Amino acid sequence: MTDPIAFVGSQLDRFQSELYDFLRIPSISAKSEHDGDTRRTAEWLAARLTDAGLTSELVETPGHPIVLAEWRGAPGAPTVLIYGHYDVQPAEPLDEWLSPPFEPTVRDGRLYGRGTADDKGQFYMHVKALESHLATRGSLPINVVVLAEGEEEVGSPNLVPFVEAHRDRLACAVVVISDSGMFAEGLPSLLFSLRGLAYFEIHVKGAKSDLHSGEYGGAVTNPGNALARIIASLHDRDGRVAVPGFYDDVAQWDAETREQIRQLPHDDRAYRAELGVNALSGEAGYGTLERTWIRPTCDVNGILCGYTGEGAKTVLPNRAMAKVSFRLVPNQTPAKVRALFEAHVAKVTPPGVTVEIRELHGGRPWRAKVEGPAFEAAAEALEETFGIRPVPMGAGGSIPIVVDFEGQLGATALLVGFSLPGCNLHAPNEWLPLAYFGNGIETLVRLYSKLGDKLAS
Amino acid sequence: MTDPIAFVGSQLDRFQSELYDFLRIPSISAKSEHDGDTRRTAEWLAARLTDAGLTSELVETPGHPIVLAEWRGAPGAPTVLIYGHYDVQPAEPLDEWLSPPFEPTVRDGRLYGRGTADDKGQFYMHVKALESHLATRGSLPINVVVLAEGEEEVGSPNLVPFVEAHRDRLACAVVVISDSGMFAEGLPSLLFSLRGLAYFEIHVKGAKSDLHSGEYGGAVTNPGNALARIIASLHDRDGRVAVPGFYDDVAQWDAETREQIRQLPHDDRAYRAELGVNALSGEAGYGTLERTWIRPTCDVNGILCGYTGEGAKTVLPNRAMAKVSFRLVPNQTPAKVRALFEAHVAKVTPPGVTVEIRELHGGRPWRAKVEGPAFEAAAEALEETFGIRPVPMGAGGSIPIVVDFEGQLGATALLVGFSLPGCNLHAPNEWLPLAYFGNGIETLVRLYSKLGDKLAS
Repeated sequence: MTDPIAFVGSQLDRFQSELYDFLRIPSISAKSEHDGDTRRTAEWLAARLTDAGLTSELVETPGHPIVLAEWRGAPGAPTVLIYGHYDVQPAEPLDEWLSPPFEPTVRDGRLYGRGTADDKGQFYMHVKALESHLATRGSLPINVVVLAEGEEEVGSPNLVPFVEAHRDRLACAVVVISDSGMFAEGLPSLLFSLRGLAYFEIHVKGAKSDLHSGEYGGAVTNPGNALARIIASLHDRDGRVAVPGFYDDVAQWDAETREQIRQLPHDDRAYRAELGVNALSGEAGYGTLERTWIRPTCDVNGILCGYTGEGAKTVLPNRAMAKVSFRLVPNQTPAKVRALFEAHVAKVTPPGVTVEIRELHGGRPWRAKVEGPAFEAAAEALEETFGIRPVPMGAGGSIPIVVDFEGQLGATALLVGFSLPGCNLHAPNEWLPLAYFGNGIETLVRLYSKLGDKLAS
Repeated sequence: MTDPIAFVGSQLDRFQSELYDFLRIPSISAKSEHDGDTRRTAEWLAARLTDAGLTSELVETPGHPIVLAEWRGAPGAPTVLIYGHYDVQPAEPLDEWLSPPFEPTVRDGRLYGRGTADDKGQFYMHVKALESHLATRGSLPINVVVLAEGEEEVGSPNLVPFVEAHRDRLACAVVVISDSGMFAEGLPSLLFSLRGLAYFEIHVKGAKSDLHSGEYGGAVTNPGNALARIIASLHDRDGRVAVPGFYDDVAQWDAETREQIRQLPHDDRAYRAELGVNALSGEAGYGTLERTWIRPTCDVNGILCGYTGEGAKTVLPNRAMAKVSFRLVPNQTPAKVRALFEAHVAKVTPPGVTVEIRELHGGRPWRAKVEGPAFEAAAEALEETFGIRPVPMGAGGSIPIVVDFEGQLGATALLVGFSLPGCNLHAPNEWLPLAYFGNGIETLVRLYSKLGDKLAS
């Protein structure tokens, strides 16, 4: 067999079986009790890259290791960096999963499990696309550096230092990342933007211990009430973020992009029904796609205060905690947002409590013009696989390293993703269309060939 | 030995040892996994009342049993109902206890443990005061009905029906309750008021599952943010409860009582230092004692939303819960407050989420004139024990059954308590001054005699 596309079809069952093994290891980077699992996942992945025909290694970091693999057997051909991550989000709330998060399960054509879409399932398409070329032709149409990190879900604290320290080794013309989605089923897409992130914990502290709400209620500031006031102060009545200065650096988008967004086949009623909510909401003056792609936001990710068990405990808690994050758009930066947020919280915190803010995670937003040979290669590869020309789209999530790859390596970032809206990223019952695992591998096989053609020096 | 006071002194070590056994059983009425412990506590207590010389029984209810004991050997003497509770609050947060909550431990003259002050330690003083009379004189100076319930900490759902159904058996001139505190160390007190309680859970629900905060953030109402907005709306900037109509039924207190309050030896600076807060707060126009005794309040008791574990999970949660309670003053009622609260929450809930309110607990406030023979008996008994005339004081907590005892039985309620401010009711490291266990028994021995004298028909 010399055709890599045919090879994909003939090997798909094995490819899926390997993917299941990958998904079964709970590589939850945020939880230290899973550090062993996370390392085991890296080792497993490096072994599969070696099996595919690349030279691979684990690069130690102060946190989880980086999996690095290379194939440089195509002199004169462009070099492509394939980036992904082998770590996953925590699976909580566990009781809402219909099948165990780390036991991949197919229902109605969907492969369910933590990491199916974000990002193991998508990253593994690259591993198998590389294998398909090498197994059938003995070579790749491009030079390749594969970089899979294990800390994407905790803010990639060690990746930028690694990239900075290895700019020569990572030098490339294009970075390809499959960690995003298509606009709709059957409608492939190329990303023109990602939002950035500034993620904080707010800790409100009151008295030196919990108090009886009868004995003391009315005379001391309740940290739970104070925290609620702080969170409520983060938005105004028009759905805008009410932190002074928050919008100062927000770039207005060009009319052409906003028109492209308006022409996408989006239906608020269907979106609302899919989510099961009685109304959509958000910043006044913008539509749903704009609100999620090109406008910044502020969301509570978690709150914990006082007694939350069964029954009525009349406690006046002495502390309250919230996780609050902002999604950023060009040209906001996490550092500036942190300063504005801290100043605002200090201003609205009532007397009688103290507040500490901890930054957990930050990443800059990204924006691109969808044009040039790399994007054309991706557009053609997607069209040949899916039978329809991809649409340009934005994304509400964050892949902070994209900005750094572009800045450090001078490369073009190409975000070609295969998950679908509603695939429960970071939520229970995450899924990937099972068919898209094969479609994705085929697309990537084609993409490598086209990048080799279009970027040949 | 014929003097019950001398008997108390001679038996105090044994009395304390028994109290420790009482405290060791975790009779947490709010937690169904402790139902067996709660029943075991009732059985233990009934046995001790029998040992003391009363006839005792367990009365089954749909919830935890009532311990009922009687001694009616004093024809012509008044009948006194002694009420208390053998259940306790949950002990969370467990990691803040310096010694295990259910292992009574003495440090610096304080007996630490859940239930030491509320209410096992205080209720057991009555059991031992009764024993001290009966063991030395073979009789009591009054007829006695002892009623200890196991559901005080969950709103006494089965007590009022029991009282209503047994008005004849419970008929009495005076109800004595030791479930409150003294104004200060060495300064005994008689209560003139208790606040009522209206305790709710608010459940905010959004999308049908948790969502990715990047993918959806900005387009859907976040239940955590919505809950914060609801909670923040419950107060205005003057510290007043901002639920429309909330103050309509609040009775103004007489000038004499407010003057008595002002003359008590209270020091805001010492109070603040004791609590470890940088400022006190509350309703504008009232002092600390007024804010905690004669003014109503609203406090968060708990909040739970989204991801609260280690690290940064970028989830947009689909639900949020808060426990919120109001302390009521005459003439507010839990039913009216519930209606006002529900109407207010419905008005401030943003589109895109739904809210459900559950009432967990309700009790009416109580107020009395501190005068007449029963109060005089208590004042004399306290003065003989502590060497100083007791001061009248209010209490911020709630003992809802007091209003029902007065209404159903036509009795005078006498609240004679022995805990101290800062004793961590409902909080970690609850304590009772160890010496006051003996002082309390002596006071009650004297009180029974004086009630027999002053109320003789």
